[in-house]
Amino acid sequence: MNNYVMKIQYDGGRYSGWQKQGNTGNTIQGKLEELLERLLNEKVEVNGSGRTDAGVHAICQVANFKTSRVLDSHEILPKINEFLPHDIRVFSLEETDMKFHARLNAAKKHYRYCLDRSEVENVFSRKYALHLPGELDVEAMRKAALLLCGKHDFKGFCDNRHMKKSTVRNIYNIDFTEDGGKLTIDFYGDGFLYHMVRIITGTLIMVGQGKLSPNYIMDILSSKDRQKAGALAPAHGLFLVNVFY
Amino acid sequence: MNNYVMKIQYDGGRYSGWQKQGNTGNTIQGKLEELLERLLNEKVEVNGSGRTDAGVHAICQVANFKTSRVLDSHEILPKINEFLPHDIRVFSLEETDMKFHARLNAAKKHYRYCLDRSEVENVFSRKYALHLPGELDVEAMRKAALLLCGKHDFKGFCDNRHMKKSTVRNIYNIDFTEDGGKLTIDFYGDGFLYHMVRIITGTLIMVGQGKLSPNYIMDILSSKDRQKAGALAPAHGLFLVNVFY
Repeated sequence: MNNYVMKIQYDGGRYSGWQKQGNTGNTIQGKLEELLERLLNEKVEVNGSGRTDAGVHAICQVANFKTSRVLDSHEILPKINEFLPHDIRVFSLEETDMKFHARLNAAKKHYRYCLDRSEVENVFSRKYALHLPGELDVEAMRKAALLLCGKHDFKGFCDNRHMKKSTVRNIYNIDFTEDGGKLTIDFYGDGFLYHMVRIITGTLIMVGQGKLSPNYIMDILSSKDRQKAGALAPAHGLFLVNVFY
Repeated sequence: MNNYVMKIQYDGGRYSGWQKQGNTGNTIQGKLEELLERLLNEKVEVNGSGRTDAGVHAICQVANFKTSRVLDSHEILPKINEFLPHDIRVFSLEETDMKFHARLNAAKKHYRYCLDRSEVENVFSRKYALHLPGELDVEAMRKAALLLCGKHDFKGFCDNRHMKKSTVRNIYNIDFTEDGGKLTIDFYGDGFLYHMVRIITGTLIMVGQGKLSPNYIMDILSSKDRQKAGALAPAHGLFLVNVFY
């Protein structure tokens, strides 16, 4: 058997998320497995670095799969992309150590949430940014974000109430970039819980709008109560940017 | 009567271009006139700064219309955008001099052509850039572009063979910007003929690919022969960026 690692880009708009549902469902994992099984003529299981929700995009998702076949990237990549829908592209495929597992070995992840701050929604980012006009105190958002950085129990920022494993995660950094009518929030951490980036974003937005004080972040963290945190920010503004190993 | 000037942004992907065809057709002008007539309850003619072809986008198209009604931008803009499709937005509306005409008074236009230079097409620019991987000599393209700048008869770069008016235009500047996997070509001129930016782009691409020498530009200009110029670059990479008065 051989183990291959792929880098995948997708526009999540049309999909029910990364993870296969039922047979394959309208999912990225499903589309990739279906296609690889057809091309390789054997059962294939594609392991992503993690699930992305319905509607969430990926600039670079990482996944691995094992096969009895020996693949030449220059030969197989064009075939893969020929048959994939135009909103999913595999832009790299390499042989890797048999022990490599895209999810289990992921050490660090980078997510990005994009806000369109124009008064009238920008036509070209309508599917890739949350339109959020009006007053927004980005300095207050930065203060709140700083309180989230470091190793904390993020149970209050997780939508999986039956999570049995640890809800402790380490956020290395949250960066804000204002560029023209756009506000970009970059999240770097060792991992993120179900809906965590979107709940944090929704909470930071409420801080920016003056509906919550930056210090209220401490209450959400210590209470571990999802009800105290802000609303879930919509999926179409979120991108998985990169996964580090 | 009052005269209003609007700034309009659109994703041209779904439309047959700016200019109304037949009744209204699936055009930007048609959509705007239809909506304004409904809101103002009178016949409205929207004059754009110029036509954009089917599939071409606009970051800022300028248009004016006359009405007997007195409009308050803060009141009417949200209504306009509420009823327009999401791929067309009017982001500014102001009263202007009765003599102002968006096409006749346009002094300078800025168009942009976007190329995606990634080996595998970038999913997020698939509708907004021409995917052009492989070798490309941007220096040769710059040289060819310099020869196009200035006042010339651009008949060889025009797809309207029955053009009765002058085909002389002044190109002020053609700028190239390379940024990551993207190559952007910005065109500034006093006006552009039918398909002119796309034919120039197609020709510059052939120069970049070594299929034409930069100096061949002079032959196309002097012969005024469309057959000598390169292929028409696809519409989806082209943006009308701004119009100056």
